[in-house]
Amino acid sequence: MSQPSITAQTRPAGAAAALLADRERLSHSLEALAQIGRLPSGAVRRLAFTDEDRAARTLVMGWMEEAGLAVRIDPAGNLIGRYEGLDPEAPVLATGSHIDTVPEGGRYDGALGVMAGLEVVRVLGQQGHRLHHPLEVIVFADEESTMVGCKSMVGRAPDQPESYATAVGRPIQDCLASIGGDWARRAEARRPPGEIAAFLELHVEQGGVLEAVGKEIGVVEGVVGQQRYTISVNGQANHAGTTPMAMRRDALTTAAQIILAIEDMALHFPGDPVATVGKLQVWPNAANIVPGRVEFTLDMRDLSHTVIDHMRAQLERKIENIAVASRTRIAMTPQFLVDPSPADPMIQEVITESCQQLGLSYTHLPSRASHDAQEMGRLTAMGMIFVPSRDGVSHSADEFTSPEQCVQGVNVLLQSLIRLDASLAAS
Amino acid sequence: MSQPSITAQTRPAGAAAALLADRERLSHSLEALAQIGRLPSGAVRRLAFTDEDRAARTLVMGWMEEAGLAVRIDPAGNLIGRYEGLDPEAPVLATGSHIDTVPEGGRYDGALGVMAGLEVVRVLGQQGHRLHHPLEVIVFADEESTMVGCKSMVGRAPDQPESYATAVGRPIQDCLASIGGDWARRAEARRPPGEIAAFLELHVEQGGVLEAVGKEIGVVEGVVGQQRYTISVNGQANHAGTTPMAMRRDALTTAAQIILAIEDMALHFPGDPVATVGKLQVWPNAANIVPGRVEFTLDMRDLSHTVIDHMRAQLERKIENIAVASRTRIAMTPQFLVDPSPADPMIQEVITESCQQLGLSYTHLPSRASHDAQEMGRLTAMGMIFVPSRDGVSHSADEFTSPEQCVQGVNVLLQSLIRLDASLAAS
Repeated sequence: MSQPSITAQTRPAGAAAALLADRERLSHSLEALAQIGRLPSGAVRRLAFTDEDRAARTLVMGWMEEAGLAVRIDPAGNLIGRYEGLDPEAPVLATGSHIDTVPEGGRYDGALGVMAGLEVVRVLGQQGHRLHHPLEVIVFADEESTMVGCKSMVGRAPDQPESYATAVGRPIQDCLASIGGDWARRAEARRPPGEIAAFLELHVEQGGVLEAVGKEIGVVEGVVGQQRYTISVNGQANHAGTTPMAMRRDALTTAAQIILAIEDMALHFPGDPVATVGKLQVWPNAANIVPGRVEFTLDMRDLSHTVIDHMRAQLERKIENIAVASRTRIAMTPQFLVDPSPADPMIQEVITESCQQLGLSYTHLPSRASHDAQEMGRLTAMGMIFVPSRDGVSHSADEFTSPEQCVQGVNVLLQSLIRLDASLAAS
Repeated sequence: MSQPSITAQTRPAGAAAALLADRERLSHSLEALAQIGRLPSGAVRRLAFTDEDRAARTLVMGWMEEAGLAVRIDPAGNLIGRYEGLDPEAPVLATGSHIDTVPEGGRYDGALGVMAGLEVVRVLGQQGHRLHHPLEVIVFADEESTMVGCKSMVGRAPDQPESYATAVGRPIQDCLASIGGDWARRAEARRPPGEIAAFLELHVEQGGVLEAVGKEIGVVEGVVGQQRYTISVNGQANHAGTTPMAMRRDALTTAAQIILAIEDMALHFPGDPVATVGKLQVWPNAANIVPGRVEFTLDMRDLSHTVIDHMRAQLERKIENIAVASRTRIAMTPQFLVDPSPADPMIQEVITESCQQLGLSYTHLPSRASHDAQEMGRLTAMGMIFVPSRDGVSHSADEFTSPEQCVQGVNVLLQSLIRLDASLAAS
């Protein structure tokens, strides 16, 4: 692909509306990427910092260079392709996602956002259309495990190497070195305030809301915050035959009460929070012994920090009552807290207008999964565009978004970037 | 100890009321036995068919011979000491229990019943008191794992060697041979109908009822029946962030409903049944995934077969409704069923009279744990006497019944055997 023509700057503004992504090219790129780490099941295994991850990065880097981008790798391992703007001094518009996967991941999670950024610059370049602002397409390092890429860019990456649990089990220093990063210089990956004017990420929904409400595009309101706890219930292990029902201090029936209280609370709390008990263990876990101890996780997510805090407070009161009635000791220990990351209202508006212009149906919804955008939103104005996931399935060989749905998402991304560029340039 | 005097037969019947167990001798015997397999924690590890089990059997066999009993080992490994009666042709009165333990057992479970039988014949012999019926003191082989001893005596032992899961992991044939039994001749261990007129077992309660109601003696109404099931719930594993509460098919919240329904049912069912979910497993068991599958055990016990059957039927109806409401598939698979073994009413009456005569407080209660008596009750008239377990604790270093409580139990056993002997001789 040749360098984009400099004549772009002389095109009339209306022409931008005619720019559309190439569905075939997008599909071919997604397909080529999905071959790297493909498993017999059809799932993709491309763990960060593995040979597969490096091969995929090399492939994408080549495509970026073909599309005329200036490519660099920052010390945190982020692969960044820059499409120069009419004003090289203007702050950057950025888009991107990740190409690493979970152990048995799908073909769209992350990959679509990167291929979308690439398709955007391919279209712009092909049509000789240059934006006012520089445009960066970013492949963030290791989204699925450590988020070292986006967190370093935002300046929120932990300083202790042992805090990074990489999927490959190797130290983060070695991992970064293996993809062209440099742990010692990771602070340099941090982007100064104002350097990036906005970040947009296209992603598959990984949930079933768009499909359920029959909309083509999701305008993301923000990435939900998350609180994770461990709850332990200590009762008394006892003989399942000789201990009368009324004399028991059964840790499992007590845990069951808490689990149902959590579900009931999340179902009926104002707004749309989720709360999950996903992991549970019983001691001594024998058929003929009344359980003496149960430990389980609680994961709560919502767009509003206040909602999560209120749920936690409500649950704590509930648990106190349950502990008294069941004569057990119950402890609730925080594991981690992630603040919600709201999407910028102006960017949501730009995405909405782009959908209207393209004649695509849309709805607003929160992202309840983590994304690079969640961290980028702590640095700059952030927006996310969702396309539907069939049956809401993700992290699976069955993850699927049709070529038509993919290209619709890329067109919304493209138009949103163009609108944002114009709007920021005018302000 | 010398042979019991034959003059016993000439003593007046009233003299029997004066026969009392020797508390010191009983305590010393229990103490000596508890040294074999004693762990640093104070618990006792005397698994059936180990060196410790054999050493304990040798010790008891010696005591039996000293007490003037004719000792034999039947092909099922049961150690049987016979105290001849005035009428050697009369059917046998039998008592006994076991001296094998769980991996970290207590000093009284089983041991007390054997030492009690021994103390009874020591008292009878010392006082020159001979019963009309022959009296057998039986040490049943392997009560804690296979129940091969009592089941063979009753003719209910499985014929397939692989059905026996011995605690030592060795084949049952080798195990029996190691204690003087003979697998090939195990059918000869079966006692013909009528040969044993009655079986009485003294045992620690292994529960907290006697302590809770403040009674010295438990007159056992029977050994409860038991039904064991595995219940599996199949929902749908899903992303804990992206799956809205109302769209979930959560196997764990569904299991929690069933667990609470089981507890509620057992608490409020007429009578005094117990129902326990002791073992539970979750798949995939990750904090960020809505559980897709849960499997757990259900153990139900009651004196009445009808009560257990009604509880099962009620639970099945409840589960059908829960499955529909939660959009899950729930299956309830039987693992094993053990019929209740009621105690003979006449023997309960004899035990009650003995308590009254000795001035001991008593209450009627079921045995909710398994005992050799449960099997013997399928062959002959059976009765059980309970003494309190401190804090209801059993199968533990903390298992404790005071010397005074132990000797009270032995005195009730002794008087009950004397009364039974007289009553059966008169009929």
